[in-house]
Amino acid sequence: MRRKLIVVSNRGPVSFSRNERGELTAKRGGGGLVTALRGLVALHEVTWIASAISDEDHALAGEVLEETARDGSPFRLRLVAHDAQAYDWFYNVVSNPMLWFIQHHLWELAYTPAIDRGFHTAWDDGYVPVNAGFAAAVLEELEREPDAAVFFHDYHLYRAPRMVREQAPDATLMHFVHIPWPQPDAWQVLPERMRVAMHDGLLANDVIGFHTDRWRRNFLHSVQEILGEDASAQTITAAISVDPAEFDELAQSDAVLAAEREIVARRPEKLLLRVDRTDPSKNIVRGFRAFELYLAAHPEMRRRVGMVALLDPSRQHIPQYAEYLGALQREARRVNDRFQQEGWTPIDLQIEDDFPQSVAAYKQFDVLLVNAIFDGMNLVAKEAPLVNERDGVVVLSENAGAHAELGEWVLTVNPFDVEAQAEAIHRALEMDGTERRRRIDAIRAHVRAHDINAWVDAQLAALDGLAATTPR
Amino acid sequence: MRRKLIVVSNRGPVSFSRNERGELTAKRGGGGLVTALRGLVALHEVTWIASAISDEDHALAGEVLEETARDGSPFRLRLVAHDAQAYDWFYNVVSNPMLWFIQHHLWELAYTPAIDRGFHTAWDDGYVPVNAGFAAAVLEELEREPDAAVFFHDYHLYRAPRMVREQAPDATLMHFVHIPWPQPDAWQVLPERMRVAMHDGLLANDVIGFHTDRWRRNFLHSVQEILGEDASAQTITAAISVDPAEFDELAQSDAVLAAEREIVARRPEKLLLRVDRTDPSKNIVRGFRAFELYLAAHPEMRRRVGMVALLDPSRQHIPQYAEYLGALQREARRVNDRFQQEGWTPIDLQIEDDFPQSVAAYKQFDVLLVNAIFDGMNLVAKEAPLVNERDGVVVLSENAGAHAELGEWVLTVNPFDVEAQAEAIHRALEMDGTERRRRIDAIRAHVRAHDINAWVDAQLAALDGLAATTPR
Repeated sequence: MRRKLIVVSNRGPVSFSRNERGELTAKRGGGGLVTALRGLVALHEVTWIASAISDEDHALAGEVLEETARDGSPFRLRLVAHDAQAYDWFYNVVSNPMLWFIQHHLWELAYTPAIDRGFHTAWDDGYVPVNAGFAAAVLEELEREPDAAVFFHDYHLYRAPRMVREQAPDATLMHFVHIPWPQPDAWQVLPERMRVAMHDGLLANDVIGFHTDRWRRNFLHSVQEILGEDASAQTITAAISVDPAEFDELAQSDAVLAAEREIVARRPEKLLLRVDRTDPSKNIVRGFRAFELYLAAHPEMRRRVGMVALLDPSRQHIPQYAEYLGALQREARRVNDRFQQEGWTPIDLQIEDDFPQSVAAYKQFDVLLVNAIFDGMNLVAKEAPLVNERDGVVVLSENAGAHAELGEWVLTVNPFDVEAQAEAIHRALEMDGTERRRRIDAIRAHVRAHDINAWVDAQLAALDGLAATTPR
Repeated sequence: MRRKLIVVSNRGPVSFSRNERGELTAKRGGGGLVTALRGLVALHEVTWIASAISDEDHALAGEVLEETARDGSPFRLRLVAHDAQAYDWFYNVVSNPMLWFIQHHLWELAYTPAIDRGFHTAWDDGYVPVNAGFAAAVLEELEREPDAAVFFHDYHLYRAPRMVREQAPDATLMHFVHIPWPQPDAWQVLPERMRVAMHDGLLANDVIGFHTDRWRRNFLHSVQEILGEDASAQTITAAISVDPAEFDELAQSDAVLAAEREIVARRPEKLLLRVDRTDPSKNIVRGFRAFELYLAAHPEMRRRVGMVALLDPSRQHIPQYAEYLGALQREARRVNDRFQQEGWTPIDLQIEDDFPQSVAAYKQFDVLLVNAIFDGMNLVAKEAPLVNERDGVVVLSENAGAHAELGEWVLTVNPFDVEAQAEAIHRALEMDGTERRRRIDAIRAHVRAHDINAWVDAQLAALDGLAATTPR
């Protein structure tokens, strides 16, 4: 059955710019959501609504653009132009860091944040009107196709569903929250009017999806404590995943093979890998400290083991992110200064966005360290084992969503316990080949059986369930 | 009915020292718990077990001392000597800051804490053996008086009840937690073995008491998530309070009257008061910032209003506390530098332990600011209105335990919202006399009706309830 779907997300699948010759060119985004929804676009009639980001995006906003996905599937694209000041408040003040930091437990509450007049303004004149801009675009599309289901994504859009619902009481609205949902006391950081508004906004959906039961249960608890009532929307758990065929293909691509040759040429005997955005939630500083503790405890392994940290610079317009980048560089330098020898640097730190290099490193790791403080899912923990060629061991934080699925085959670590992380690195490096093989095979089998299509299907099944019941 | 009770707390009611002539003198502690349990000591047969702190305490440890409370009531005192290194780990590493910071949401999780080998050692060789020392003393007392009920206090002693229960399966054990209980994800900071051990230790009690339903519900949720089972102990809510007669008397004491004369001589027309320990949970830095925002918005009130901050220096052996003292001094200086004029300093910051001065200020405030980030109860919010003589208004954090009782008569603030706190200060200063009187009268009536004896009685009633059921 071919469905009509309106996908709504802050970042869209395409952004426009002009090349050196002044020609308009469309750059397909490489973001996880675009990849994740590829199957949806291929099989259904999708209109995608997203923020206009570049100048050229703004020039095209309002029009409906006929675009094609990487596989040639057509979809409609509608870019929403927001006031530049409003968008800055929406994105750089409310969504990040505030909501992101609350949902990942990152504030230092003794000192930060201070909800000042600036923040109230950023909410009232930034987050709310940008959400209203999205809602208006959705309502126009619903006028054209009243039976289309609307599919909102993530923490940028907590208010939009209520705004749509008020004008379109019978619309089918669904929301997927890609990041952790914290327990209700975490929301105490927001003034009551805001925490009520965002919970109320989400509950205007018919269905709300989360990656794990843990985040879903936290949401239900949060609704009870903050709104004083049971959730009026249906909630589902659907774990996002990857497209194994894409990684099979990528692993043999020229770009990845070239990057892999470089890694092989300079890799140490044992390679410890981390691949992350430079986000404070990723726990990069403690990861370096854990590797330092490992090296201190195992002098026999110096020169033989090295950590490769492939870090995609992230949100550098936000002070906390800029500071975190500084802190992790300082920590890597400190560890290297302590241990490095002629011909061996313990931590090979690369701060750039280079996906082929990441996939090449996925093939080459002996130990993958994913020690996130909190993480909605963490796809690296699913992607890397798929293509790994050394029976690598995954060390995984108990607070990553992926742990709910992969827990029995990984070495579980508490992200705050650097001593335990150092021990896990040691245990992973010492693990015998049979055991390593058994674990990574199980991870691969799980990910292949629970791939990205399973995630999309779970959501479409929830839509079918709605359609089968009385309309609102 | 005169009961046999064994009270167990880290800090005891008496500490010993030698005066200038080398004579042993007993100094009665002024701590809240000692005052709170005065009624218990007066009416029942109490043996108090506490840590030996001073050298003289250590010399007396092991003996049973016959002491008398301030009102002349006799009680038995048993001081427990701990190894000095173990006690330092127990007190300055595990109890404070770790447990205190977790229970008040104070860590900056992107960077702190790191659970390193030092922390594992502090738990294994500090918190656990100090709890074992308490348990051994309790067991010896139970051998002497097998029918005595044991009454543990607070976050220092989460393991001791299990250690007692293992040796004395039929003993009656009760625990009171005086600080907030956070929701389960907050405990993720601790390695699993520790978070399991402390929940398990508490559940060895027959009854566990909390100041508010909010903390009690969080505890039940926490047990479910962390132990995967329902709580096997009974939980009760019993809000600690004050002895109104004590404050009536204090308010007219020579020391308070002298301090009050000094305050009156230099007070501005309108006096904004805060009285706190210099604890990061008390939110002193944001309080100063809120007052700055108020002064910026109301230039007509400069010179007319002043803030008096009476701050008892706290836990200065712990780096986070030393840093917080620096930060709040810097913030006060910044605000004063911005606004002060000849003859008027906006913030009068006094860092000393001077209880008569605090009571004098209680009498004199026009607005009392209690903006704690999280606080188990906060007795200042109950004490100060009792003796206030200016129909002062209380501005109270929604995250203080006292808010559950006093919420309808205070101006409620979100502790992170400095803008809202500035507005609450304005609203309080503008409030008409009738309204102010109505509110403070209601607070006083509530506190007099729910005094310290009501708190003790609620706990004794829970013991009676236990005795009425089948023994374990």
